Amino acid sequence: MVSSTATKRERFDPSSPLINDLVREFGENVTTSAAVCERHGTDESFHLPHSPDAVVFVTSTEQVSQAVRLCGKYQAPVIAYGTGTSLEGHVAALYGGVCIDLSQMQTVLEVNQEDLDCTVQAGVTRKQLNEYLRDTGLFFPVDPGADASIGGMASTRASGTTAVRYGTMRETVMSLKVVLSDGRVIQTARRSRKSAAGYDLTRLFVGSEGTLGIITEVTLRLFGIPEAIASAVCSFPTIEDAVNSVIVSIQSGLPVARIELLDDITMGGINNFSNTNYPVADTLFYEFHGSEAGVEEQSRQAQDIADEFGASNFQWETLPEDRNRLWQARHDALYAMNALRPGAKPMVTDVCVPISRLAECIRETKRDIDGSSVVAPVAGHVGDGNFHVAYLIDPDDDEEIKEASDMHDRLVMRALAMGGTCTGEHGIGYGKIDFLNEELGEGVSVMRDIKKALDPDNIMNPGKIVRM
Amino acid sequence: MVSSTATKRERFDPSSPLINDLVREFGENVTTSAAVCERHGTDESFHLPHSPDAVVFVTSTEQVSQAVRLCGKYQAPVIAYGTGTSLEGHVAALYGGVCIDLSQMQTVLEVNQEDLDCTVQAGVTRKQLNEYLRDTGLFFPVDPGADASIGGMASTRASGTTAVRYGTMRETVMSLKVVLSDGRVIQTARRSRKSAAGYDLTRLFVGSEGTLGIITEVTLRLFGIPEAIASAVCSFPTIEDAVNSVIVSIQSGLPVARIELLDDITMGGINNFSNTNYPVADTLFYEFHGSEAGVEEQSRQAQDIADEFGASNFQWETLPEDRNRLWQARHDALYAMNALRPGAKPMVTDVCVPISRLAECIRETKRDIDGSSVVAPVAGHVGDGNFHVAYLIDPDDDEEIKEASDMHDRLVMRALAMGGTCTGEHGIGYGKIDFLNEELGEGVSVMRDIKKALDPDNIMNPGKIVRM
Repeated sequence: MVSSTATKRERFDPSSPLINDLVREFGENVTTSAAVCERHGTDESFHLPHSPDAVVFVTSTEQVSQAVRLCGKYQAPVIAYGTGTSLEGHVAALYGGVCIDLSQMQTVLEVNQEDLDCTVQAGVTRKQLNEYLRDTGLFFPVDPGADASIGGMASTRASGTTAVRYGTMRETVMSLKVVLSDGRVIQTARRSRKSAAGYDLTRLFVGSEGTLGIITEVTLRLFGIPEAIASAVCSFPTIEDAVNSVIVSIQSGLPVARIELLDDITMGGINNFSNTNYPVADTLFYEFHGSEAGVEEQSRQAQDIADEFGASNFQWETLPEDRNRLWQARHDALYAMNALRPGAKPMVTDVCVPISRLAECIRETKRDIDGSSVVAPVAGHVGDGNFHVAYLIDPDDDEEIKEASDMHDRLVMRALAMGGTCTGEHGIGYGKIDFLNEELGEGVSVMRDIKKALDPDNIMNPGKIVRM
Repeated sequence: MVSSTATKRERFDPSSPLINDLVREFGENVTTSAAVCERHGTDESFHLPHSPDAVVFVTSTEQVSQAVRLCGKYQAPVIAYGTGTSLEGHVAALYGGVCIDLSQMQTVLEVNQEDLDCTVQAGVTRKQLNEYLRDTGLFFPVDPGADASIGGMASTRASGTTAVRYGTMRETVMSLKVVLSDGRVIQTARRSRKSAAGYDLTRLFVGSEGTLGIITEVTLRLFGIPEAIASAVCSFPTIEDAVNSVIVSIQSGLPVARIELLDDITMGGINNFSNTNYPVADTLFYEFHGSEAGVEEQSRQAQDIADEFGASNFQWETLPEDRNRLWQARHDALYAMNALRPGAKPMVTDVCVPISRLAECIRETKRDIDGSSVVAPVAGHVGDGNFHVAYLIDPDDDEEIKEASDMHDRLVMRALAMGGTCTGEHGIGYGKIDFLNEELGEGVSVMRDIKKALDPDNIMNPGKIVRM
């Protein structure tokens, strides 16, 4: 169901007044090349790509503002692009229009070591930032897996493996510079640690997926690199034992920095893919951050809890090269999953439930998978109650897509019935709009009111989050 | 500057159709008694009180919705009331209208011990909640001093002494039930620890001071009562030594649960008020939460850092009665400050700056105070860069009010110039609207757009946060 104003939108060919205006303003930094446009309408998901009519490469907030103003003049859709690693079709130009590529906005604008914060342009990626911070003793912890841009991570409220300890982009973004649909530029907050100054504009734009404005600069909290880091891995007799071990760890206040579940199928895939010989069993990967003594205390507590649930092969590493080797297996998980069925595309889900319901949710989901013809490994950031199923589907087999899609529907309904959310970290994009309605009902009407107020002509990434 | 639509608003006398409708609906739970109305238009600040035309006592979300619908029918202002402990005139009925008193909504609706969360009606106070949780091993940490209602704390984005460790209401509220200006009821989020499902409605309503809707239920994160708690107090040669000691503690990642500064004037007041004999010097109060070993390690680190800045009389307490005695002094601070000048009213400020600028900000502020005729003790949640000056003014002396008010203006401008905020925790109310404009400029126009979208007739707590 797409509204009539949306479907009636015109496309902009290279000779259209909009593209002419853009070329006049941006010269060779605007392109209508089919290959470039196609790449910019494609993300890492199984959702169908949609090419924009043009791509503009920008280097400053002023340029973003100028490009948005020109698009506004012709009511052309505007889609922001960082690294294209989104997972719900966020960058798909459903109605054509102009993609604004921010990947060249790569300046770290300031690092305030004493205040543990920094401000970066939106195109800086998280690895680039951490590389830049190398000599400061500080780091930015949010790690969604992909080397995404900080602007994109803020736009999708990304999280990942370290959220259980350091929070998500919701907690780590302090302030944003945003270009609005009419080209106005705002700064959402000052640089103080807390504030009660009016509506929380920062949190409003974090997770708004480019539908309310385009984020051009991000001020982030940083953290001191811990004095000591330890990693551990261990296997469990059943997935429920693994999950229950996580639940007890979290409930007892163990400050784990990462606690990740990989099921037996995924571990088998990793052994094949990475030439390792881990037991093919439901497995937890841990990371502990703190003082030498603190890390040792945490590891001991984690092992005691794991032992209660029948864990075996508890391996504990503190040397960087050993830790990296151990975590490499976790980082390879997505590729290892994909390699389980060459040629298949993963339909990746990301429900998140209250932790007391996590074992039950995973158990019922595995039962559903077992009764199907689809291979579907499970992995997750289980300390937050968040887990992924990767349904490995043949993209040309409609029946299989339907089977996986039905399982995904049931998974979301199961999570919602348990008080959970349809998306812990990937966002709504155009793939989960119906789920959002199921999840928040009347709340979505408030989102629509806000969208109308800030983007009356519906030019900002139309067709994402809410249908207008 | 108040808009003409606002000033032209009619008042509602006891025989008006609105009051008749309310009486028909709520019977003896609606009152127009002048004494009750006056009390409900008054908070704990120096701002002038303004009585509503009527007060409705409600016990359910449905009743709030019904009352708001009736007010909407007559375009009457609606002001929510919890405990009346706000500090920027939030409950003042600037244009009359109806106060909705939620203090009887005192049910703890559910406690999910395994998930470390709970849901309460908005009228439950923080002390009531912690009393209720007594046997669960859990607690709700946010402590703004006053025994405020949880709904009020969410509405003003309250924080206080423990925010440095556990966060503010921004971080601890998981979901809200809200009645909108047209009587619609929404739930802003599910109960999962994280979510990327659309706009962050929870954070939009946290801190919106009743101007976008009325919060009737709050889902909160809870925390395990730490295995060990230790408290400490020590004095410093100068306020800069105290503040620099805080800065180094925070920068080195010391996970203090509370770290509070009281200046020499405040300490003198406390000795008089509480009959203690602390050194009359700039003083830090600490609290540490963790394991036995962890708390000891933290205390030692804190002492080492304090020693570097010339601290003396480092007193360390672990027994509950000793800790409570020690912290009682901190809790009495506001009363002790007020007692420094009997009959005076405190004009309390709450700027918050990046911690690297804190010593400079306090030093310049103290210099300004020293050059004035006003007594003004300083205390603060310095781990967050947040501090209070209480200008003790004679409420009948216009010249003195002007002198204090000018100093407050200079204090805010100083904080803004340092990248800080005009309000770390008290909110905007009707006392800081001009400061908000200074702080966020064009950002305020976005707040106004949102306000218009969700409250087109400007009936929700009009005249607060933004002028329409």
